[in-house]
Formats: sequence, C-alpha cells, structure tokens
Amino acid sequence: MRLTDIGEFGLIERIKANLGQVLPEGFTGIGDDCAIIPQREGMQTLVSTDMLVEGAHFILEDIGPYRLGWKSAAVNISDIAAMGGRPVASFLAVALPKGLDSAWTDEFMRGYKELSAGSGCLLLGGDTTSSLGPLCVCVTVLGECPVGVSVPRSGAKEGDNICVTGCLGDSGAGLRIILESLERDTVAEKLIERHYLPVPRVEEGLLLAATEGVHAMMDISDGIGSDLRHILKASGVGAEMDLAAFPLSEELCVCCSRYGWDPYELATGGGEEYELLFTASPSARISVPHYVIGKITAGSEVNWGGEKDYGGFHHF
Amino acid sequence: MRLTDIGEFGLIERIKANLGQVLPEGFTGIGDDCAIIPQREGMQTLVSTDMLVEGAHFILEDIGPYRLGWKSAAVNISDIAAMGGRPVASFLAVALPKGLDSAWTDEFMRGYKELSAGSGCLLLGGDTTSSLGPLCVCVTVLGECPVGVSVPRSGAKEGDNICVTGCLGDSGAGLRIILESLERDTVAEKLIERHYLPVPRVEEGLLLAATEGVHAMMDISDGIGSDLRHILKASGVGAEMDLAAFPLSEELCVCCSRYGWDPYELATGGGEEYELLFTASPSARISVPHYVIGKITAGSEVNWGGEKDYGGFHHF
Repeated sequence: MRLTDIGEFGLIERIKANLGQVLPEGFTGIGDDCAIIPQREGMQTLVSTDMLVEGAHFILEDIGPYRLGWKSAAVNISDIAAMGGRPVASFLAVALPKGLDSAWTDEFMRGYKELSAGSGCLLLGGDTTSSLGPLCVCVTVLGECPVGVSVPRSGAKEGDNICVTGCLGDSGAGLRIILESLERDTVAEKLIERHYLPVPRVEEGLLLAATEGVHAMMDISDGIGSDLRHILKASGVGAEMDLAAFPLSEELCVCCSRYGWDPYELATGGGEEYELLFTASPSARISVPHYVIGKITAGSEVNWGGEKDYGGFHHF
Repeated sequence: MRLTDIGEFGLIERIKANLGQVLPEGFTGIGDDCAIIPQREGMQTLVSTDMLVEGAHFILEDIGPYRLGWKSAAVNISDIAAMGGRPVASFLAVALPKGLDSAWTDEFMRGYKELSAGSGCLLLGGDTTSSLGPLCVCVTVLGECPVGVSVPRSGAKEGDNICVTGCLGDSGAGLRIILESLERDTVAEKLIERHYLPVPRVEEGLLLAATEGVHAMMDISDGIGSDLRHILKASGVGAEMDLAAFPLSEELCVCCSRYGWDPYELATGGGEEYELLFTASPSARISVPHYVIGKITAGSEVNWGGEKDYGGFHHF
C-alpha cells in the first residue's frame, strides 16, 4: 500500500502496532506532544543524535530498508555505549521520498526494532514527513548511567594502553566494495554486512565503564586515525601505535590481497566500525575481549611506527 | 567563508563559540559522544522531535536563515510547553546543501539561539552533514516537569471549557500570502511574522499545568480543526464550538476582507499557530490570558454551530 493512501497518522498507528512495545511504569510513548521518561536521583541522562542522508551516507537501493533501519538505530546506540551508558529510548524522524510504500517502511521498522530490542532501547516518539529530495533519517537516543560512571574522551593518561573491542577495517572494506561495484562473493558479503549491520558494543561499554582504570572511551565512527585524535586532543596526550597488533579479520586480509589494498589504511581510515576505542591503565582488569594496539605517550604526536602516516596529522 | 573550507569540526567549533553557553553543574554539552543531563528524583523527562524539510515545510529563500533557525527551535519547544514542561536542552541535526557559507549558518544559529535562550533551553549537541538535496533540520528538545504535573491530551471532561491562549488564523493567513505571492504591506508582514517567528507558550504552559482543573492540553500545529480531534479522540468526548468567540486579530480581519477569505477557515485549518489549546473545568482559576471558544460535550461529535464543517470530520 502506498504511504500517500495511509497518511501520516495511519503510518504512525501502523508503526506503533508493529512495535508491540510494553512500556515500563511511568513511561509514555508515541501519541502525545511529548514522550515521558521518569528520572532517578543519582542518574544522568545521555543524549546523542545522528542524521543519515541518502547519497551522503548510504545508497538507498543497495542498503535496502531493513539494513537502513538497523543501522539508523545502531549508530546512535553506539554513542550511548561509548559513554558506558545503557540505552533507554530512541526518537526517530524520517523524511520519506514520495512513492515509497508501506512494505518498505515495515521492513525499515523491522530492522530498526531488531537492533533496538537487542539493546533494550524503546522507540518512544518521532516525526514522519515527506521529502521531494533524498531520504533522510534522524535518530536521537537517550541513555542513562549513574553519575560519575560515564567515560569521557578526555581522561587518557600517559602510559595507558590503547585498546579496541574488535576487528578494524572490515566496514571500510565493505564500503569500498559497494562504491567500486566489486564482486560480491562470500568474503565480500561478510565485509558488506559489517558495514551495513554494525552491532553497538552496549554490554562491553557498560562493563568497561564499571572497570577501574578505564580512562577514556569513544566509538569508532570516522576511523581510528581520526577518532583517536579526539581522545588525544581532549586529553592533552600523544600516542605510539603498534600496527602489528591491529586486529584484522581473515576476510579483510583475503580481500586486501585480492585487490592490492593496504589493510592498515582501511583499519585506520575506514570508519563506521562502531567498535569501542578506549584507553586503560596497564593494571586495569578488563573483562571484555579487546586488543591492545598502542600506548598513550606524553606530548601530542602520534607515532604510527613506520614510514606511513595513517592519521594524516601530527599536531593539534 | 564557504562551509567546505571550514569543515564539519570547524563549523561545530564556530557554533559552540558563538553560543557562549555556560552549562550548569553536572551538564556536558557539545564535544563528546553524548551530552549529559543530570536526573532528579520525582521529575520526568519530556522529549519531542520534529523534522523540517525544505520544500515541504518552508521555502528557503523566503524564510531565510534567521527565521528558519528561530522556527526550528520554536516548534519543538512548543511541544514541551504543551505538556506543561520546562525546556532544558535541545539537539540540532542539519543536512546542509553544498554552497552555503558560514554567514548563513551564523544567521541560522542567531535565530535558533535567540528563541532558545528566551525559553531557557540549552543547545547540548547535534549533528551536521551535507546534503545533495533539500535542506533538512531535525531538532529534539528535552524538557522536564514534576511527576504527575504534565497535562496529556486525554484528560478532557464533559462540561470543560475549550480554550486557546491567543489569536487563531494569523499563521495560516501568512502562509497563504507567501504561497500565493500576494502583496506584502504592513498588515501582510505582521501575519507572515506570525508564521515564521512563532513564540512557544512556555510560561503559559507551566502555569496551566500547575492550575487545578486544567484537564487536557496540546499546542496547535496542524490547525484547531484537526488538533482538537486528537484531544477529543484521546479523551472520548465531543465538542460544541462557538465561532463568534474565536479570537481573530485585526490584521487577519483586514486581510480576509481584502481577499474575500473566510477567517474561520484560516482560524480552524491554518495550523502552525503554536498557541496552546486546553480544556478546563469552568471553575478553574486560570491566570493566563485566554479565550473560551467552545465546550466539551458527551459523545464524539463536533458541532461548529453553523452550516459549515470546519473540522472536516464528525466521527472517530
């Protein structure tokens, strides 16, 4: 059925019915001027917002509705995870090109719901509008954590290990396969899936935030070469990286040798990994799987340990 | 200076510097993965999000950056006011067409800031991206109010007065002048200003929420004919309207007689008023200026008191 036949209120009713959410005591969701979320003493609300625009962030025909729904929720929930918070509620605003039908929005919402439900995040409101231009999705996620528990970007200390929670470069390789229209065999599909269906590290973020000695944390959205800079700048420190210790997947290595790509370029510059990048004292007892890929140093320089500068910067 | 020369991070720094906000204890704003807002026992967070798309919601050349910035903040803060809440923080995501320069974004932010500051609402984060298509603005506002104080749409009772906080139809008339490219004399400009620079009724909403006997409230965004339906449906009641009691501005009357327009059509269907529509027991002691324009009745019908059906609906 075409969305123009359902209308805005019909679409909202349909989304609400398909979500089938049971709200906890004190919560109000879709249907009034505002959503309502109870506050608790000693807790703090974390808020993050991201906008995804067709053409700039995704190719609509390639990503398809399910994966776009999933990813729209994932990138914001990842920001909550990066502070060590628990996702609570999301708000979804979409500008939809005319001509889309309800099967498309059903699939979009199915992806959005599957990712959100896995993170315990309720959809409590939003806005639907039509657009004469590209499809545009804007998601705002609210999370929470006890006061004093959130992990900022600014806490890195000289001597800290620089760590990541998972493989680097897969998402960037997947994107390159999409943009260059390369062959999509099993290896390629695995990398594309890492690009389209990222899993925010919510449980890992919560555990790391509760671990003594974890000093700075963020999620990798622009690529570690650029994102690390934010931590270093905010903390007033430098870094020495150990490329040999970078976690690279088998699929990335196969793909790089196939096309002659430099895996470290993808691992540092690819972005959209949504793994957590954190620094921790070497004595910290870290209970989540992670890889130590460098060390925080004094000063403000990054040493990539070779001829090549993977960060594209030296000074701040 | 062109935005492509400043870059995303440069633009964010510029916005942050121009805002010059001093954040209260416990708040964190622009610059980390998430913003942080402290929670308080017995309070509840109110959240609203709205997306404005060029072509669908505004004509970019006509509204201009200052008024677009103002209106983007206003429409969301109005939703907080409609629940009887106090605006706390906003999050601003924008997709900007290439070619805009920093003078444009400066003016946009000046309008956004002026409206927000007037409502005590801090800008704590957002997202900036570029778009190959129309300009798109998505604002999410967080407000708060004590538990049990927020006024829903669903509380209207038989015998309640139906009230509005200000004149109806001006905004709709202003929009019609814009869309039909009519003459812009002083009268017209006044109506256009009501369309482009709405003032959310924050103080009025707070006072009404604290007034015993105020049962249901919302802000008028789609026009009273359509918005009233939400209150009636949610409350399971009907209404008898008194068109003669509708507050109409002098400018609206002048303009309507000039072009032969029906002022009641604009007053009921125009929308984007951002006045508060509320129902209250006749014995409620209401301390804010308001107009009684009808009465809540049993059943589910709306009687507009004449031949014409201004709501475009009878049953729910």
